[in-house]
Parts: sequence; C-alpha cells; structure tokens
Amino acid sequence: MPEIIEPVTQKQARPTINDVATLAGTSKATVSFVMNGRHNVAAATRDRVLAAAAELGWTPSQQARSLSNSRAYAIGLVFARPPETLGSDAFFARFIAGVESALADADQSLLLRFVADPAAEQDAYGKLRTHGRVDGVVLTDVRHHDSRIAFLADLGLPAVTLNRTDAPSPFPAVSLDDERGTRDAVDYLVGLGHRRIAYVGGPEIYLHSTRRRLAWQGALETHGLAAHVCIETDFSASSGARAVHEVLALPRHQQPTAIIYANDSMAIAGVVAARQAGLRVPQDLSIVGFDDAELSAHINPPLTTIRSDSYGWGRTAAEVLLQFLHTGDKPPERMLPPAELVIRQSAGPCLGGDD
Amino acid sequence: MPEIIEPVTQKQARPTINDVATLAGTSKATVSFVMNGRHNVAAATRDRVLAAAAELGWTPSQQARSLSNSRAYAIGLVFARPPETLGSDAFFARFIAGVESALADADQSLLLRFVADPAAEQDAYGKLRTHGRVDGVVLTDVRHHDSRIAFLADLGLPAVTLNRTDAPSPFPAVSLDDERGTRDAVDYLVGLGHRRIAYVGGPEIYLHSTRRRLAWQGALETHGLAAHVCIETDFSASSGARAVHEVLALPRHQQPTAIIYANDSMAIAGVVAARQAGLRVPQDLSIVGFDDAELSAHINPPLTTIRSDSYGWGRTAAEVLLQFLHTGDKPPERMLPPAELVIRQSAGPCLGGDD
Repeated sequence: MPEIIEPVTQKQARPTINDVATLAGTSKATVSFVMNGRHNVAAATRDRVLAAAAELGWTPSQQARSLSNSRAYAIGLVFARPPETLGSDAFFARFIAGVESALADADQSLLLRFVADPAAEQDAYGKLRTHGRVDGVVLTDVRHHDSRIAFLADLGLPAVTLNRTDAPSPFPAVSLDDERGTRDAVDYLVGLGHRRIAYVGGPEIYLHSTRRRLAWQGALETHGLAAHVCIETDFSASSGARAVHEVLALPRHQQPTAIIYANDSMAIAGVVAARQAGLRVPQDLSIVGFDDAELSAHINPPLTTIRSDSYGWGRTAAEVLLQFLHTGDKPPERMLPPAELVIRQSAGPCLGGDD
Repeated sequence: MPEIIEPVTQKQARPTINDVATLAGTSKATVSFVMNGRHNVAAATRDRVLAAAAELGWTPSQQARSLSNSRAYAIGLVFARPPETLGSDAFFARFIAGVESALADADQSLLLRFVADPAAEQDAYGKLRTHGRVDGVVLTDVRHHDSRIAFLADLGLPAVTLNRTDAPSPFPAVSLDDERGTRDAVDYLVGLGHRRIAYVGGPEIYLHSTRRRLAWQGALETHGLAAHVCIETDFSASSGARAVHEVLALPRHQQPTAIIYANDSMAIAGVVAARQAGLRVPQDLSIVGFDDAELSAHINPPLTTIRSDSYGWGRTAAEVLLQFLHTGDKPPERMLPPAELVIRQSAGPCLGGDD
C-alpha cells in the first residue's frame, strides 16, 4: 500500500514531497513511486529522488502514516458521471453488484459517490482519505494519462484500476480484453457480407473508448475496409437512437449496413429507432451491442452483442484491492476472460447496400 | 433524531433500557418512542415508562450521545437481497441513483451493503452505528411489523422508511401510492374485456407486496371478478417467465387472458416466455409491468406498465433523511405522486378466453 503522503501540517517547518520533487527534477508522482519501492522508475531517476529526499531530510508524515493504520473496512467508488447512469447503463449496476458480492464476503462496505466532474472527483478522494472513510478505491473509466493515479499515490490512498493505465501506476490493475470481442464482431459482420460497418462509441477521454474504437478500425483494415463512420457519444440510450438518424442522413451509398455500439442501452435504442424509421433489423440494418445486459436476450430481435462479465469484473477488482490493502504488495495485472461475441438475431446477412 | 440509546458499557452497574421496559411492562421500542417524545404511545403507557425510567434513574448514555455527535457525512443503505438484484431490478439502480443525486448536492456519500438475511442486516446496522460510519439509513422493503424499526430506534440510528410502516415508528416516511396504478391497470384490462386477470407479485414478507396484491384483488372484486390466479415470486426475471408456464399449465378455462406483474423485469421475461410458448402478445395474452424501466418502452411490443418514479423516490428519501438528521424533528409523511398506468402495446382487447 502506498504510504508516502505529503505532510499536511507544519508546511513551512518541514520539507514536503513537492520540495523533493523539485530538487530531484521529477513529478510528485515519481517521488511516490520511488518511495513505494515500485520498479517502474528508471534507475537514474530513482537515485536522484532518493538523494533529494535524503538531502532534505524528508520522510513520510508520521501523522499520515498513523491515519492510514485506522481501517475503515470500506472501499470507495467515485464516478464522474451523472447519477442517472446507474439506472440506465447495465454495466455499472452489475459491476457494483460484483463489488458488493466480494465486500459482503469480507464483511465490508462500499462507499459510493457520484460527482459532477474530475475536479469534484479529486476533492471527494481527498475528503475520503482525510476522514478515513475508505481504505482504498476502485478506479473506473481510466483516462488517457490519467492524473488520478499520481493524485491518489500522493494522497496515500491505494487503488485498483479497471484495465491497465497508459502511464506508470503503483496500483494493481484488473483487465478485461474488450478488443477481441470487438474484432470478432467486425469479422462476423464482414462474413455476413457487410462492407460498411459503423461504430458508435463512448467518450474518447476514456482509454477503453479509444481502445475499442481502434479495435474496430484495425479489424476493418485487416479486411481492406474503410472505417468510414464513427460516432462518439456520451453512452446514453438517446445518443444511440440519434446515431441511427445520423447515419440515415448520409448519402445512400455511404450509409452503413451494420452498426456496432459500445453498450447495449444504445444498441437497443438503436434497434427501436431503426424500426421507427421504417428499417427492418437485421434485414436492412444489422446491430451489435456491447455488455450483454440481462434484457438484451429478451428484446425483439434478441440482441447480438459482445458479452463482458461486468459482475465478475467488479468482484475481482474488489478482491484484488482487498488483497492489496492486506499485503501492501502490488500483484501482477489480473486478466479476466475476454469479452466474447454472443450471436443472436439483431445482425444478419447483408441484403442491400452493395451499390 | 432519536437520541435514546441503550448504554453499551457498564451493563451491570447501570440500568438499561431493558430494565425500564421490563419495569414498565412494555417493549424497548415503546421506551424509545416515549423518550423521543413521539405522540403515538397511549398516555397511560407513556406515564408508566416515564415512571419506570425515573425510578431506575435511567438516562440516555452520555457516551452514545457524544458518539452521535461525530458526523460521518454519509448515509447507509443495507439490502437483505442478493447483490445481483442491483443489476437485474431496474428499481434499485434508479432508486440509488436518486439517493446519490441528493447526496451529491449535499457533498455526502452513500454507504451501500448487501447482506444475506435480516440477521446479517441487523449486525450491519450495529457495526455502522458503533463505528460511526453513517449518520442515518434508508429502510427499503419494509416488512410487516418490521422489527428493524425498534432495533434502529434502540441503536440510536436515525432512518427514513420507504412508505409508512404498519406499526408506530419514530422515523419519517416517504411514500408512493402504488395501489392506484395497480387498480388502474385492472380497470383498464377489464375495460378491454378481460375477465381472468392474474397477478404475479413479490415476496409477501414485504408490505408493498401485500399492498399491491390487495389492490389488484380489491379492484377485481369491484368489478365482480374473482382474484383466481396469484403467484408469489422472488422478483427475478426467471420467475416472471416461470409464471407464464404455470398459468399455461392450468385448465384452458382457468387460464388468465392478462397478467399484471410486480416489476418490469418479470413482465419482459413473461412477454418472451409467452411468445416462445406460441402465444401472441397482446392478442393471446396481455401483459402489464410495474416500474417503467428505461428499456420497457423499447421492447417489442412496448410494455404497458405502471410507472413509479424510483429516481424521485430515492432523491426525496435522501433529502428527508438529511433534513431529519439536521433538525431532529420527524416531518410528516411525504407523499410522492402516485404510480400511474402507462399504456403502450403489450396489453390489448381480450380476443379469447370467453369459454
């Protein structure tokens, strides 16, 4: 568990992690990584940090250390998404259910917060840490060069990340390969004769959004096809319906004959919007989702989708975090079974669009 | 806020609430109610309790009082349901989203726990209270003569209940009339010519399950019809599908031509099961749900259902609890807009069954 914490009292009298970072010519995060004994820092940098800490006489705050010894028996989950997401996106409810199942076994609680934006998210972590409300947190929706990693490391608040980060992290990662399922969906649609396959993804601030979009793009390129229509959304069902209207507004010869959506809520709304627009699914438009929400098998036509085990992901993330809190040792990245294509009836042979 | 707490230390040396209750010939809950100044206790009982407390020299524990002054800035939600419920029952995710929206505005957190059974639930409340993890809790799924009310009052852990209880309670209630929508659904189906309308409800340990079942039954009786088929379930989608198989196993002249379900997950699974059994919905079997989950408008046929504002319920419950924590005064019962029938296409004119 990261134990290096910036002293918050006697700021003028004692050196801070900032002073060490400045003297060593590194970031605060790097100082944290070095002091936590992580091995992802270059040896020369590591030596500079240790020399700077020694020169300044900087050590982890005793007060903060003792704070970190009082256990909350709770872990935190802070979402910078609208609270409504919980009711509309099947991933989150099932993910939290998985987290809860591991916590119930360990007789621990989940502290859940929804905040308006990343700034409020950092503020929330700060308060949870200062007041000892949680022993660690689960980081979802990991962003490109995610500043939360260094922030949490500085705060001394251990975490587990959903999927590995794209920058050094002192925290364990629990990862689910969502690229393979996306590639399989493209291969499947190409096999059905589709040549124009659109992608409707989530916000590109998230690593997972970019990763899945690139998987779609790469798979198309493998088949010599162009990634011609890609729509970025906020993951909401209404944006899934809007995407159908957008593609129908394209010139006929550019309209996709198939759409891969980044979640089932959008895909189901897409099926409905396509039918309302007079299209048959899958005869006129094939639709593939992502998640395999409980209801997806029950809509008409039953949804072809890419199944991710969000419940298992939540459960494993909580287990890994509890283990990390217990041992203090960062375990190797845990890989979950990859998301896989579930073939139902919302995607079918390409009957048109060969103009 | 209830401040009368059973002393937990020096049990032998000091009188306890148990001693007061024994001497007064009442329950511990009644002692709590009296000491909290609630007016739902008969005057004679009240006098006996006050006399007993005076005779024994019993006062609220100072230690517990001071404990109650340290704020957690979090409220608790403990569910004695499987964690999976969160992913499968649209009510809970939206309800929690509503709770979170009020907490986000107040810069507070939600502490969420799933426990195996009512005993584990009481244990969880005890720990949350003892360790000061929450300032109050939201009680859902209120049961007949719910023992949690007196337990929480004794514990000094304030609560808000979803719907009023059937016994005296020192806690505020936030209620949603789910009877009117259920009656409206019966009236609507009778107006469409249905004479055999089944009900598939939740566990009868919950007040809301019984209340809605009785609303269905009463509405049928108003029309001179028999409440001939009623199936109790655990609220799961699979039990919704099973209910269809059960009614199809009845002799033809007893088979219902319409089913009202207690939630949308079961209703949607019922639509699918009916179609798989070769029935057309609504021509051969009309189906009505309860909740109006986000996807219910998007299935085929779009689900006729009874809409409850679970998000607003969660938000209001959290607001009322925060206000109760702040003022200490129990506000009058807050009534939400009643659940109302949303007419879509899964229920239609009764075309058969007139044998």
